[in-house]
Amino acid sequence: MRAELISIGTELAAGITVDTNAAWLAGRLAEVGIPAVRHVTVADDRAEVAAELRRAAGGAELVVVTGGLGPTEDDLTRPALADALGVGLRTSSTALEQVRAYFLRAGRKWHESNARQAEFPEGTTPIENRWGTAPGIRAVVGASIVYCLPGVPREMAEMFAAAVLPEIERRVVGGGDGGGHGLGSGGVILTRTLRCFGAGESNIGEQIADLMQPGRAVSVGTTAQEGMIGVRFTARAASRAEADALIEADMNEARRRLGVLVFGADDQTLESVVGALLVDRGLTLSTAESCTGGLLAKRLTDVPGSSAFFVRGAVTYSNASKTEVLGVDAGLIEEHGAVSAEVAEAMAVGCREQAGTDFALSTTGIAGPSGGSAEKPVGLVYIALADSAGCRVRRFTFGEYLPRPSIRDRACSTALNLLRTRLRD
Amino acid sequence: MRAELISIGTELAAGITVDTNAAWLAGRLAEVGIPAVRHVTVADDRAEVAAELRRAAGGAELVVVTGGLGPTEDDLTRPALADALGVGLRTSSTALEQVRAYFLRAGRKWHESNARQAEFPEGTTPIENRWGTAPGIRAVVGASIVYCLPGVPREMAEMFAAAVLPEIERRVVGGGDGGGHGLGSGGVILTRTLRCFGAGESNIGEQIADLMQPGRAVSVGTTAQEGMIGVRFTARAASRAEADALIEADMNEARRRLGVLVFGADDQTLESVVGALLVDRGLTLSTAESCTGGLLAKRLTDVPGSSAFFVRGAVTYSNASKTEVLGVDAGLIEEHGAVSAEVAEAMAVGCREQAGTDFALSTTGIAGPSGGSAEKPVGLVYIALADSAGCRVRRFTFGEYLPRPSIRDRACSTALNLLRTRLRD
Repeated sequence: MRAELISIGTELAAGITVDTNAAWLAGRLAEVGIPAVRHVTVADDRAEVAAELRRAAGGAELVVVTGGLGPTEDDLTRPALADALGVGLRTSSTALEQVRAYFLRAGRKWHESNARQAEFPEGTTPIENRWGTAPGIRAVVGASIVYCLPGVPREMAEMFAAAVLPEIERRVVGGGDGGGHGLGSGGVILTRTLRCFGAGESNIGEQIADLMQPGRAVSVGTTAQEGMIGVRFTARAASRAEADALIEADMNEARRRLGVLVFGADDQTLESVVGALLVDRGLTLSTAESCTGGLLAKRLTDVPGSSAFFVRGAVTYSNASKTEVLGVDAGLIEEHGAVSAEVAEAMAVGCREQAGTDFALSTTGIAGPSGGSAEKPVGLVYIALADSAGCRVRRFTFGEYLPRPSIRDRACSTALNLLRTRLRD
Repeated sequence: MRAELISIGTELAAGITVDTNAAWLAGRLAEVGIPAVRHVTVADDRAEVAAELRRAAGGAELVVVTGGLGPTEDDLTRPALADALGVGLRTSSTALEQVRAYFLRAGRKWHESNARQAEFPEGTTPIENRWGTAPGIRAVVGASIVYCLPGVPREMAEMFAAAVLPEIERRVVGGGDGGGHGLGSGGVILTRTLRCFGAGESNIGEQIADLMQPGRAVSVGTTAQEGMIGVRFTARAASRAEADALIEADMNEARRRLGVLVFGADDQTLESVVGALLVDRGLTLSTAESCTGGLLAKRLTDVPGSSAFFVRGAVTYSNASKTEVLGVDAGLIEEHGAVSAEVAEAMAVGCREQAGTDFALSTTGIAGPSGGSAEKPVGLVYIALADSAGCRVRRFTFGEYLPRPSIRDRACSTALNLLRTRLRD
């Protein structure tokens, strides 16, 4: 019981866009014990797509295709699937109704080219798209079941979860629906991840080197992105409970060794963890940002329900706004410069007073690419955390070689981590 | 003259890591006129990799493989390539010296397992890796030339640039080196993109449907992401100048038809275009955000040099902060609610006055996932733009089905686009 994944798109084949759909689908299929043994990417080329569909259907019981279902001339998955099946296209009135209804609901103007999205190869079944315009397709090619999903990652994920996964699970667990396409029982492959911040990948890797040896029941690996270190635990077992128990034991050991470096697991983010800590204690936060330009407030308000702890943020980009909005002494800026420990502190203290919050975080620094000097290089950021006990300022150098978005992102993560460790004490 | 790309790795096949190597390589190959017609991802499985190598070599004159060259038990590209060639493995003393020298240089401890990295299929050529431990391999399989590169993106890119690209260019431009593997003359493949906002993909597709017909000298396609529509133009020609001219003609025609919907091209963003328009005219901007929570200011300050036009931003998340920071009448909020045209207008007008800027943008809405009602559903956002002539407020419904990040992102894009069209007039 295996799956093949086909990603369709000239943008993908030409390397203009990185395909994330195949990796996402492979992860979801692994969770129900189905290995995605091959992923193939091909351009929007009718003959190539048809050939690939036939080849994949010959090699795996399950084929998941993404992309090429849109309303424009270069969306060729529908005719290519018809070619692979040796049939024609026919409009589904139900699907046409659904596409029209989506446009109505979204308040968008109907264009006749959208009707193309309701054409399907004869003998196949449309899958409703409640999150966008292009319906999916369910087909049987040879001995394989083929699902065609939209290429837009969000629509693909929603349709997979709503319409494809339940069907696959019935087949895997229930041993088929009598239609001859049962996928067999494969156990589960479970992956969980510890989220860490505050040390490098090699430092973290050394502390858990024995867990990372090959040949153990749980495979453990590390990944690094913008200072966030993920420690991934993967186990294959007969049941979810068994895989959970295997992983839990290793995760607990890693948590014990890594201590404060671990801030969460799986989908948790620094901002969601900080938000939960604040809500638990009934505490509030405000922000005063210079170099991070609103990113810190944005990340905090990414958290649903953030109005329970986040009161307000100031993006004081000009020197005058630091004085007018936060009450930073203009003389202080003149004496020490806007990028200084003194100004970071005055920003945080002023912000906290004016917002009336328990905590205030401030950032001021040089995000680049220009504006650095020998004394104050690109990547220099001061971060201050004010609370009822006073204000603590720290100086960070994120490295002149980092691009502007990375410096801003790391400054925000570092600010959030300062508050997290403060709340943890 | 075509290329196939093979990415090898269980982490990739299982969806734990997203493969970026294939897209990067496809982009570099396109620049020298070689289309990467297929990318295939397979797990670290000796038989599968060998089969894939044979299949790819049968289908393309150039095959670039990444991954599986490391020192551990699960690195199987070397034996799989030997299987595909029907030969054995033999240690290269030159390569062994180079691997040992790298360890010495990097100050790393030598482990005997690393010697495995100096074993190569008979008849193949090692490629030195000056950026890591695993050497690459150059091989001839059937009528194809096969390059095996490390999976670490940085090492892959360095080795490709230093050892593979010059060889490919010699073959493409020079018509082969007499070894029987000349790739022919390929010219260049050039891709450019128009960036559009303000209409759906189908609307834009219909206006340029004739340009999107297959078989034309320029291949034209559309993509959509969070309301941003990209119109991509790809041309293949003998020279860069010729490809440029072909694309320029089509792009100009599309620009003419799409008018105000086109905001830029290639790497331009709404915020970079708005920033450039403001700087050109010597105008300034401030922002007052509720539901977008700092994302609007963040996007504006993503633009390097944004301090030339962006003065300050207020993230007024609580009702009290709208009154205290922006001077919004508390009675107005009580009467109409924080999510209303009246409050959006008062926010923008108050923000502009206090910041002393030429323009102020405000947002207030319901980003979800909860907090919606029949009258004010999730996705409802009011956006106001204040200037010296007054204030214009607009109401948008971005759809209850959209997730919180999409609603916030679209609200910001819409706000930026309102200012863009205002500046364009």
